[in-house]
Formats: sequence, structure tokens, C-alpha cells
Amino acid sequence: MPVAAKKVRVAVVGASGYSGEELVRLLLAHPHVELCALTSRQYAGKPLSQVLPWFAGHPAAKSLRFTDSTPEHLMASASVVFLALPHGVAAEFARPLLDGGCKVIDLSADFRLRSADVYQQFYGQAHPAPDLLAEAVYGLPEVHAAAIRNARLVASPGCYPTSVLLPLLPLLREGLVKPTGIIATSLSGVSGAGRKAELPYLFVECNESARPYSVPRHRHLSEMEQELSAAAGLPVLMQFTPHLIPMSRGILTTLHLAPAQHFNTELEMAELAARITRCYHNAYEHAPFVRLLCGDALPDTKQVARTNFLDLAWRLDPRTGRLLVMSAIDNIVKGAGGQAVQSLNLICGFEETAGLL
Amino acid sequence: MPVAAKKVRVAVVGASGYSGEELVRLLLAHPHVELCALTSRQYAGKPLSQVLPWFAGHPAAKSLRFTDSTPEHLMASASVVFLALPHGVAAEFARPLLDGGCKVIDLSADFRLRSADVYQQFYGQAHPAPDLLAEAVYGLPEVHAAAIRNARLVASPGCYPTSVLLPLLPLLREGLVKPTGIIATSLSGVSGAGRKAELPYLFVECNESARPYSVPRHRHLSEMEQELSAAAGLPVLMQFTPHLIPMSRGILTTLHLAPAQHFNTELEMAELAARITRCYHNAYEHAPFVRLLCGDALPDTKQVARTNFLDLAWRLDPRTGRLLVMSAIDNIVKGAGGQAVQSLNLICGFEETAGLL
Amino acid sequence: MPVAAKKVRVAVVGASGYSGEELVRLLLAHPHVELCALTSRQYAGKPLSQVLPWFAGHPAAKSLRFTDSTPEHLMASASVVFLALPHGVAAEFARPLLDGGCKVIDLSADFRLRSADVYQQFYGQAHPAPDLLAEAVYGLPEVHAAAIRNARLVASPGCYPTSVLLPLLPLLREGLVKPTGIIATSLSGVSGAGRKAELPYLFVECNESARPYSVPRHRHLSEMEQELSAAAGLPVLMQFTPHLIPMSRGILTTLHLAPAQHFNTELEMAELAARITRCYHNAYEHAPFVRLLCGDALPDTKQVARTNFLDLAWRLDPRTGRLLVMSAIDNIVKGAGGQAVQSLNLICGFEETAGLL
Amino acid sequence: MPVAAKKVRVAVVGASGYSGEELVRLLLAHPHVELCALTSRQYAGKPLSQVLPWFAGHPAAKSLRFTDSTPEHLMASASVVFLALPHGVAAEFARPLLDGGCKVIDLSADFRLRSADVYQQFYGQAHPAPDLLAEAVYGLPEVHAAAIRNARLVASPGCYPTSVLLPLLPLLREGLVKPTGIIATSLSGVSGAGRKAELPYLFVECNESARPYSVPRHRHLSEMEQELSAAAGLPVLMQFTPHLIPMSRGILTTLHLAPAQHFNTELEMAELAARITRCYHNAYEHAPFVRLLCGDALPDTKQVARTNFLDLAWRLDPRTGRLLVMSAIDNIVKGAGGQAVQSLNLICGFEETAGLL
Repeated sequence: MPVAAKKVRVAVVGASGYSGEELVRLLLAHPHVELCALTSRQYAGKPLSQVLPWFAGHPAAKSLRFTDSTPEHLMASASVVFLALPHGVAAEFARPLLDGGCKVIDLSADFRLRSADVYQQFYGQAHPAPDLLAEAVYGLPEVHAAAIRNARLVASPGCYPTSVLLPLLPLLREGLVKPTGIIATSLSGVSGAGRKAELPYLFVECNESARPYSVPRHRHLSEMEQELSAAAGLPVLMQFTPHLIPMSRGILTTLHLAPAQHFNTELEMAELAARITRCYHNAYEHAPFVRLLCGDALPDTKQVARTNFLDLAWRLDPRTGRLLVMSAIDNIVKGAGGQAVQSLNLICGFEETAGLL
Repeated sequence: MPVAAKKVRVAVVGASGYSGEELVRLLLAHPHVELCALTSRQYAGKPLSQVLPWFAGHPAAKSLRFTDSTPEHLMASASVVFLALPHGVAAEFARPLLDGGCKVIDLSADFRLRSADVYQQFYGQAHPAPDLLAEAVYGLPEVHAAAIRNARLVASPGCYPTSVLLPLLPLLREGLVKPTGIIATSLSGVSGAGRKAELPYLFVECNESARPYSVPRHRHLSEMEQELSAAAGLPVLMQFTPHLIPMSRGILTTLHLAPAQHFNTELEMAELAARITRCYHNAYEHAPFVRLLCGDALPDTKQVARTNFLDLAWRLDPRTGRLLVMSAIDNIVKGAGGQAVQSLNLICGFEETAGLL
Repeated sequence: MPVAAKKVRVAVVGASGYSGEELVRLLLAHPHVELCALTSRQYAGKPLSQVLPWFAGHPAAKSLRFTDSTPEHLMASASVVFLALPHGVAAEFARPLLDGGCKVIDLSADFRLRSADVYQQFYGQAHPAPDLLAEAVYGLPEVHAAAIRNARLVASPGCYPTSVLLPLLPLLREGLVKPTGIIATSLSGVSGAGRKAELPYLFVECNESARPYSVPRHRHLSEMEQELSAAAGLPVLMQFTPHLIPMSRGILTTLHLAPAQHFNTELEMAELAARITRCYHNAYEHAPFVRLLCGDALPDTKQVARTNFLDLAWRLDPRTGRLLVMSAIDNIVKGAGGQAVQSLNLICGFEETAGLL
Repeated sequence: MPVAAKKVRVAVVGASGYSGEELVRLLLAHPHVELCALTSRQYAGKPLSQVLPWFAGHPAAKSLRFTDSTPEHLMASASVVFLALPHGVAAEFARPLLDGGCKVIDLSADFRLRSADVYQQFYGQAHPAPDLLAEAVYGLPEVHAAAIRNARLVASPGCYPTSVLLPLLPLLREGLVKPTGIIATSLSGVSGAGRKAELPYLFVECNESARPYSVPRHRHLSEMEQELSAAAGLPVLMQFTPHLIPMSRGILTTLHLAPAQHFNTELEMAELAARITRCYHNAYEHAPFVRLLCGDALPDTKQVARTNFLDLAWRLDPRTGRLLVMSAIDNIVKGAGGQAVQSLNLICGFEETAGLL
């Protein structure tokens, strides 16, 4: 591990939402980071411990106060800036920061797509900074580590895409499953909706409620299909159905896939199983945050809660000839703040797990 | 509505579990029923209001006490007996009751399958009363009303099958979707696991936990495929993945289906949509407990909580060419006790909704 | 039971909140009531089943639609009007309705206090209709049944006061406990905060959160102390500390009381216990909605969920010389809609339990 | 901070319960500790990551495996042993460990009481090792730091006592409140009941349930009164009523106290407030884990979740003349594992916050 002679100075823009809060938690505990600025229009001027009382008493949090700093102010003090802003707004912040020499890790959707057209299609507005898209790196460290290391602008993936792509990309890259007919069903905790005062997210409305939403075209499809297509080497369309369930954190994703080769006999099934095992092993044996479950174990969101891990298990179904892959992440950590810190670690040359284990 | 000059006398065997408790709730409020016996080995001798204090103060519950009555005792007082027992045990109770002239509505899996072989395959034991299988009627009132009316032995469907079959059967019967490639994903509240003192169902183990289980071969597949095959006129295999989520009641099921005909143009899509609309309308316009949602509405378990309704919505996805159908039920009502009472109503010639609205 | 030749026509003003919704649920199932109007400024024009989809499919709900009817419109069709409005607003609605000959059952705080001064003190605004206060009856049916029967204007008590007063009033009236040093601690489900889009009531903010609020002076103190003082025959001040906990429904209240007489010996304790038993027995043996728990049982909100019952248990503590009384209600039923219907039953001469058991 | 040249080797006996699990989590992250043994009769032989999958992937957890080691084995490898066992059993383990030269930090109730008689009274069995009671130190670091530093045997306090004693002891010691009439009401998450497969702790039984229990004499009263009496200098009896509420973690305690001096005027109230402020300031200004809340803030269990903090706020009620003090802790951290680690830090001469911030 490279011992950072000097800590990297970072800022978080939009730090009062759930992702921003988790980022702050991780960055305050990070051994090589100094968190030097937090911004929030709504809470500007207030100390961190007043807005987010969980942090009170943590030594590093003593002096932190929310500001409504401009990019210009931020670039004066920070060398890496995290943006935890709504899409559309993030891009406005990113440009001056990049121009000023900062590295930017954006948690919004603004820089995740290669194509401004696809952005327009899925987000219903013209892309605010299309010229930056070519440069932005999709910040999935298990896949794009090399590019992230050299990036100025990292587009940290959404929570659903992380839970879908990590299980799926290796299989597609090795041609083990067909690039057609992919079906993903996801269950998300309510923090995925953000800290927004809206009726559908009230306790009483969410308790005892399980409901699909954004059917059949959730915005995250755009980035998932972009990455799947790149892995498969041809355009991939997938089905994705998210559900809201009564928990605070976590995403559980179940993928239904068609193996590229049929398995009709026990021998064929055993051979396919061996190939899948090898495929995941090759993909993730050195990935510190992917846990390939063994034996009877299946993913469970509570087992990844407040960690940066993705848990993954799979089953072949000899009755239907299908491969089922299941994953669990904490949507606010591996699906947001933790993943962004993982990119920071790559950018800064830290150990990939610094501050995350 | 036929006014019952005399109330029908009914008994509930195994009344201390979640399904049994719901049955008791419904039967006590039923205008044409007299609940004359409740059995429970564990609680024999105790008054209902002590074992299930929710019922205390309800006038009809005053005198009820759990017994460990034999079938012989039950048949002396009741003309219809509900069995809310574990599979395997239910069959033992059913035979003497039937021999004694009682009608039996069984909530276990014991009589749901036509084939004793399939039972053995999925339940891992020889069927305890294979000669009764031919006679038993699968108690899905929206599908088998006529047979239920004349049945001596009703096998009330499981909670998952109800949530899958009602959305799927009309489409299969009319050939609107392919009988292959059917994928069902279900989310269940914890009451589905029964009132059993086991670690995985503790509050702390279920809270903040979303997890698949019984992958890839849940026992309920056997009855689902039996009914789907009958509707399609050919053997149907399906994929079914249940998940446990942190709520007490409810099942949310999402079905991914392949329409029999492709829809590539807007016109084709509109025509297919019209056919699906008609199909569901024909199937359920007179079904008092199926609600076809309109407009933007999607099923939500909290909207069916403590009711016997199944809510249903569907969407065509022009991107993938797939049909998505989503349903919600209360697993303990439409998925257990309520459905059993619906069968009772048919058997006794009451209005189908008696005691259920 | 008096068979109502003609059903009573009722209206609910402000029917889209949690209390209003429960009222609608109860009134639709009430055998002697016809629900003829629902109002909501926000949802005027929309069918009930769209705003509150739980009701879809209920026969009586078919034709119901929210309106923004004026009092004048309402009095043309309804003879009893329920007001489920915020305090301050309710009074404005009440006056023209009363002038027009309607009976009014108000679920807000507007008419619960005898004194306009106390109202000003606790609600921070001048009372909007002080001249009506003398006439209004505090709608606690177990206490004021006779007055309710003859009332034009019933002020239905708040959820906390119901859970505090029913256990406490008989003891005070009989002088069994001292009127000083009364301490009540209450735990409330989140529905008590109403259907309001505010950050503190989001699922993520309430889940895993237990918190006191309105310490030390909650508004409901005013009506509690009014009724306690009346029972004790002298001014009573009490301590009341409410807490918000992660459940949808229910209030659990624990009272710490000082018996009027010390009990130092086992005999004295047995005698006091006998007096308390008699006191509660006398007070509630004919009260259909108060359940005096026996044996080891203690109140539990889940045992009163969706019922109009109040469960009550008490313990003498020989170590401290104190009497502890615990109660549980459903805050939306016995604490709001159910209690209002109980008053309706008294006003209309129905059986007190009509539509509530 | 003394840099430990060599890490302290510790073991956890009974590591598969909720407190044990939290201890493991904290000890694995502790900079000066090497966790060398975990025991569990039930899971002996299984790797940590299989029994508690949350830990899989944590580097330090790789090689850990549950054993059923005897005290003799443990003392060969560890110099400090944590006991997370049921009361009665812990004492049996403690003696040979102490004889063998280990330091013991016991999380059970076995060594919390000075008096074997009081133990017998509250725990219903003879004390298993009465001769060790004189030596054991009550492990509340904010109160007994000096004694803990020199202890061989630390009795780590229960979760309820921690939430009651830290707010109460300074007030009693300074005579600011009367030692009589103390009333504590606590709300606990379900993890407080332990990882036990019992019906009352099932998800369905706890969800939507708020219930008092162990009224009026909870076992923890014994240790609370012992410590309160020591602080007051005279025997103190208190009232304590615990409640179970539907959350996994956390305790919220509300104390009702009588100030030693009346405050009838605003001036008297201001003076008393100043004395209380000073009292808490003096007691806790150097206590790293007590947070005295400011302004409008009141304790909320979610703000201390997974931390070793106790949050404290108080209010004077001029209407009743009473002082209300409210506290929140995480029952599994400050109420169990975290507090035990805090004692470890004192025993070993580490910074008090090592591994806990």
C-alpha cells in the first residue's frame, strides 16, 4: 500500500442526501483522505453534526460545516470532488471543476452514457454537457479499473446497474449466456428514492407494501444496456423490473438467463457449471468486493448491509434449461458512496479497499 | 342470495397458525356460518381469546375453545371442515371426515396434485391417500367454480400459485402468450413461512433482509405447472423464484411472458393490447375478487391487505416484445383463508362474496 | 337492536387522510349507514377507488367520488357529518352544518376543550368558534354516553387521550389513585402524524427510529387534563411524553400512578388489588370496547390492530408502592374513526357496536 | 496513544449471538487487537464466514473458525477473554480463565451485582461463584474507569442499565434530583431478546407490535439500583418499565425525575437549568461516547445506530416541576459489545476510543 505522505483533499457536493451522507461516513473514516468541504444549498451554514446528527462526536466531523460553495471555491481547496446531485445539475458543476484541474467523481446519471441521444431518450432533456461524455469513464471498478485510474471524470454507476452488471458482464464476455432474453428483477430499499418529502415514501405508505414501478422502462436501463452491449460485442436489450420493498437499504437482483449451450444431461450440466464457476472465478478472484457464495448460500441484503460487497450466487435449472444469478448489494454503499470511494482509491493510487473494509 | 334458514356448521382443524387464524376471523364474521370447533394439539383446552387475544371481545368468540378433537368428534358437529395442517398430516384427517359425510376444504398441499408421482417428486414422500386425488377439486374459484360447487374435497391453492395462475391462465387458454419461457418472480411477506419458531424468521433476521429461496425448484411449481398445462393443453414448465421480504403479509408477483404474436409496429401493439384487455375482461368481469387496475396503477400489496382481492396490471414492452403481468394478493386471505371461504360459499350455495367483502 | 327502517345518511369531510380513510372503511361496512359524500379539496372529482385503491371492488364504493362540497351542499344530503380536518379548519365547517340542522362529529381538536383560553394556550391561535364550546360534547362514549346521545356537536377525542383517559378516569373518580404525580408515556405508530409529505415521516427516517417528541408539553395534554380534572373534582396536571416508533398503527400507553393508600403488607396489597379490580369491572363491564386483560397478559398493539378495542392491564409494584396501568389501542380506530362511529351509534340510537365488531 | 508494539490477543466465548457478533465486528476492526479464538458449542468447527456471512471477505476473518474450546485452551492463546454467554454459564467459564491468568470481560449478568443474595432474588438461582463478586468491577467506563483499568474481571453492564445510569448518576451524585420516585421507561429493539428461536420474536409477531414486558420487576433493576444507591449514598428503589418495539437495534429511555429543589419562577428554573447543564458538562465533557444534545434535538435511536455513543437530552417541565431526561443508545454496541471493548481499551492502556470511532 502506498503510504500517502499527504492526504488527498476531497469535497462532497450535495452531501445531505442518503448517498452524500454515506460518502461523508466513508470519507471521514478513510485513512488517506481529508474531507475539506461539504455543500448543500438547503443547509448551507449549518454544522454537519446538526444536519446529520449521527456524525456528532466523530473527531474528524467537529469542524465540518455545510457551505454553498461555488466550483471555484471548491477547486481552491480540494483536488477530488464528489458530486451527489440530481442529474442535470451535476453536469453544470462538473465542467468548471474539471477546467480548474479537479478530478470529479459524479454519482448522478449525467456522465454514465456514451451517447447524448440515449440520455435525451431516457432522461427527457438535452444532455447538459455532451462534449464531456467521450472522456467520462463508467466507474465500475471491477470492469474499468485501468480507465478509472487515469480518469479526470468518473461516472459512478447507479445502484441497480451495479447489481445487474457485475453478475452479468463476465458471462456475456465469455459468451456463456445468450445476449438476448435477459430478464432482471430487482428489489430495492426505500433509500433508493432519495431523501425526498413525497407521499409514496412515507413510512405508512411503504410499510407492508411491495410494488413494482417504472415498468417497463426504468432510466437505469440505458446504462445497463450500454455496458452489456460493450461486453457482448453487439447491441443488447434487456428487461428490467424494479420493485420497492419495506426496508431502508439494499438491492436484491435476480437474473434469468439463457445459457449459450443447452444442457440436457447431467454431464452437460456439470460441464456448464464448471465453466460458469471458472468464469466467475477468473473475473472476480482478485476483486476484493465481489463475494462468490458457496454451498447452499443465496444472497441476502442484510449480509451486505453497510459494506461495499456484492454477494453473488447462481443456480442452473435442469427443468427449464435456464441459469439464475442472484446478487445483493447495499444500494447506498456499493450502489453509491462506497463504489465512488473505490474509484477514488484507484484514481489516487491507494489500495482498492482503503477505507472500505 | 339464498337466505340460509340454518347456518352451516363448520370446524377448523389446525386453527392456531396464520392461515387458521385468518380463517377463524373470516368465519366468525360470516353471515351464514356457525364456527363450532377449533382444533390445535398444542393449545387444546385453551379458550380462543387466550391463544389468539385479538379475538377477545368478539361476541361469537366468547365460547370458543381449542380442542384436540378426532375426526369422529368433528363430523358429529360440523358439516364442513377446514384443514389448516401441514402437508402429509392433512390427508390423514381428510379420509375419515369424508367417509363420515363431511365436506373438506384442505389448505395444505395434500390434494392439489392430480398425480401421486408428482407429489412424491416435489414433497419427498409417498402420497398418503392417492385414491382421493382423482376426486379432489383444485379450489381456485375463478377457474373451477362449477367443480367446487359439487366437490366433497376441495384442495385450496397455495398463496404463490394463486398469484401466478389468475394472471396467467386466461392468457394461456386464449393462446395469447407462449406456453414456454414463462418466468415468475414473487415477493412474499414472512407470514408465508408460518407461525414457526425458527431462526430465519426472527424479526432481526428478516428486517432489512431481501432474499430468494428454494431456487430453482419450489414445491408450489408442481401445482402451478399442473394448472398451466391444463389451460394450455400441453405440458408447461415454468420458472418460479420466490423471495422473502420484510413485511408480514402479501405476495407481489411479476410475470415475464412472450406474446404468441410479435408486435413490431404501434398498430400491432395496440391490437395486442386490445386482445389482452378483452381476454382479462372476459375472464374476470364477473369475478368479484379480481381487480383489473387502470391507468398508471400497478399492484401494491398494501392495497389488497386483509382483503380477498387480487390486483392485476400488465404492460407491453415494445423494446423487448414482452408482456409483463403483475399481481398482488394478501397471502393469508386470497392466498389461504379467504380463498377457502370463497370455496365454502360455492359449496354451500351462498353468494360468492359472503363474508368476504 | 333497533332495526333502522331507513339508513342514516352521513358525509365525511376531509376523507383522504388516515383517519378519514378509516372512517370511510367503517362507514361503508356499517349496517345502518349510507355514506353519501366524501370531500377533499386535493382530490375533488376523483373516484374513491382511484385516491384510495384499497376500496376498489367494494360494492358500496363503486359510485363514491371525492367532491369539494360546501357545507350547504352537504347538509342537503347528509344528516350527520364527520369532520376529519386539521384543527382551526374544522370549526369553520361545523357552524353552517349545525345551523343547517346537521349533527356534527368532529375528529379535530377544535371542540374538545371547554375553554377558549386553554385552546389558545395549547394551539397558539384564537378559538375560531368559542360560542360553540359550551355545547360540544367530548365524545368518549365510555364516559359521556348520555351526553353524546343528545349532542348536536361531538368532539371526538384524540388518540393519545383515549389511551390515557379510559384507564385513568375510573381510578380517579373512585379516588383510588392520587390526582398528583400522574405520568403517562405513550408510543405511537407513524400514522399518528397524518398523511403528510414531511421528511421526519419518511420510511427511512422512521425505520429503526424511536424518539420522544413534543416534550414536555404536547397539545393533547389540554384535553386530558380537562377530563381528568372533571373526574377528580379538582385541577389535575399530568406528565405526558409521546414517542414515535416504527410501526404504522397503534398506541401503547404506560401510566405510572400513586395509589391513594399505601400498601405495605401482602394483605393491603391484596385488598387494593381487589378494589382496583372492582373499579375497572364497574366502569367497563358493560363497555363493549374495553377489554380487561387477565393473567399474565399485557397490552400489545397488534392485538387491537384494526379493532375498536382498548386493551388494559395493570400491576401493583410492592417495591415502589406504585400502580402501573398499560393500555393499547389502534390510534386510527379507537383513537379516531372507530370512536367517531361509536358516537354516531349513540347519536342515532343504534347498538353501540354496530359496524364496529 | 500508547502504540502497542504487540497486539493484544483476545477470544470471544459465545460469539454467535447478537452481542457476540457485534464484538467480533469491533474486535476485527480494532487496531491493537488480534482476535484469536471464537467459541460456540452449536457452530464449533464452522468458519466464521459460514455462520455469520456478513464477515466473509473481511481479510482478518479469513482464517477464523468457531471452536468449542475449553477455558484451558483459550488461556493458552488469549490474554483477554470476552464472555458472551447466558447468565449462570458465564461464571463457570470465568473462574478457570482468571485462575489461568486471563483477564475476563463478561457481558452476562453474572458479576454485575455485589451481593449474591440480590442475584438469587432477581435471577432465581444461587450465584455460581459468589467469591468472585467482591473483585468484579462494574464495567461502565464513564463511571468506573479507574477500577476497570486495574480489573481482572469486568462485568459489562446490560443495555437498559447503560441507558438509565449514564443520564441519572451525575444528577444523583450532585444531589440535583431526589433519590425517590425515579421512573424509567425504555423502548428496546428486538435484538435485545437475543438470537433465540422463540415465537414472540418472530417477524410477524413483532411487526406492528409495541408491548411492555417484565412489569413491574425486570432483572436489570438489580444492577441499576445497586449503582444508583452507590451514587446517592443511600438505598434507591426505582421504577423501570421496558417495552419491545419493532426495530432491530436501539434503546430509547425516558426518565421522569423530581428535582431536589422546586422551581416556581422563571429565575429558579433558569438557575436549575444552569446547574443541570454544569452537572452534565462536568460529568461528560471528557467522556468520548456521551453526546449532550443541544437546542431542539432529542435522542433518536437511529442517530446512535452502530455507534458506541449515548445521546442525552433533558427538559424541565414548569407545569409539573419535573425533570425529564431522555437517552438513546445502540443496545448491541454501547449496550453490549462496544462497551465491552471500551473496557478492554482501559484495561490494556489503549486510547479509550480505539476501535470505536
